[in-house]
Amino acid sequence: MGLEAEPLAAPHPYWPRDLEIRRYIPNDRPTWHSLAFLFSVSAALLTLTWLAAGWRGWTGAPMRTGRRLALCWFAICGFIHGVIEGWFSLYHTDIPGDQSFLSQLWKEYAKGDSRYVIEDNFTVCMETITAWAWGPLSLLTVLAFLQRQPHRYVLQLVVSLGQLYGDILYFYTEYREGFAHSEMWHPLYFWFYFVFMNALWIVIPSILLLDAWGHLSAAQRALDSVKPKRH
Amino acid sequence: MGLEAEPLAAPHPYWPRDLEIRRYIPNDRPTWHSLAFLFSVSAALLTLTWLAAGWRGWTGAPMRTGRRLALCWFAICGFIHGVIEGWFSLYHTDIPGDQSFLSQLWKEYAKGDSRYVIEDNFTVCMETITAWAWGPLSLLTVLAFLQRQPHRYVLQLVVSLGQLYGDILYFYTEYREGFAHSEMWHPLYFWFYFVFMNALWIVIPSILLLDAWGHLSAAQRALDSVKPKRH
Repeated sequence: MGLEAEPLAAPHPYWPRDLEIRRYIPNDRPTWHSLAFLFSVSAALLTLTWLAAGWRGWTGAPMRTGRRLALCWFAICGFIHGVIEGWFSLYHTDIPGDQSFLSQLWKEYAKGDSRYVIEDNFTVCMETITAWAWGPLSLLTVLAFLQRQPHRYVLQLVVSLGQLYGDILYFYTEYREGFAHSEMWHPLYFWFYFVFMNALWIVIPSILLLDAWGHLSAAQRALDSVKPKRH
Repeated sequence: MGLEAEPLAAPHPYWPRDLEIRRYIPNDRPTWHSLAFLFSVSAALLTLTWLAAGWRGWTGAPMRTGRRLALCWFAICGFIHGVIEGWFSLYHTDIPGDQSFLSQLWKEYAKGDSRYVIEDNFTVCMETITAWAWGPLSLLTVLAFLQRQPHRYVLQLVVSLGQLYGDILYFYTEYREGFAHSEMWHPLYFWFYFVFMNALWIVIPSILLLDAWGHLSAAQRALDSVKPKRH
């Protein structure tokens, strides 16, 4: 009391600048390790899925370029949701003070959104659902298209809508907080990490949602035209 | 400074008990007004939609009992999302101190979840999307089935998944806060308002999601069996 020194909060790179982060330890790996991991695994998955989708042994059906790219997208989503966001879902409490590879990736990303180092309640909930629902379902979507299963477009619609809704809430909650958890207009942290990386999950799922909507409506229209009129 | 009295926070019925609620004014209407409004409008919509769905002039197609009930559900959702949650979306800032009918309804409901009288950020965002997306889309779903439009099951899937995801987040965020915004185990406020009323939007959308999934997969299967194999 008075004589005991308050433990000083470690200086940190997060916003707002007066944020208190318990047990923060700065990264000891350079930023490019995280970025290289993210983009090289994504590129590898893209290549593999592109080739797999082109292999005619699956169903003997040729696949259009757009469809092959969509499958690459879902494979990358399976990795990012399942592995990277899965890590956050499991270890969000420890990340600020942890030096394992994926924790360092999250400490780097959090420079664009500090909700990831303060266990923000909505963020943890949304990421947990993303990791455990949209992650596995993304991979099932790839499989469903490779095997031409009848629910392939339903899965595409479900995953895309889930991603879209989660991401809209992600931006909307932060907008209502005045983008307080980021250094506004910072080219790398605000624009690239926070805006661009997440905008991808607005734009691409919107396109895929409309695509699935069109395919499923067309299938229903075809069925309606031959089936007796009974709902 | 020292001489100026702190304005006393008005006593309120919300949890946690030490919650500060700005400009709170207690309801001057009895509780049953809100409940009667909610349930009588819902019952009227149920009756009207039930009759409308039974009218064979729409498409000449008979509609099964389950389908007619599903349409009643979507009509009630259109009302609750569009009107009641729409009100919250627009006036969440004023509700604690406002005596208009729907504000009093929300002050009553908030006894089961005080996030509705403190402008909780996630709650405002989720309710706004519910009101302006799932509300109108619920009504479009009713229309789509009455007119037997080919996207009727797609709409059912979209609305049901949107409701389900929003509601899971709603329960999950509050679970992680230890149900702090309600008087736990209170028969009316906790069990009926918070648990039961929201559990409806877990159970029924799950059933309707599976139903739409089945119909859309069946339509795709039928189309796949006649179309040349091309994705």
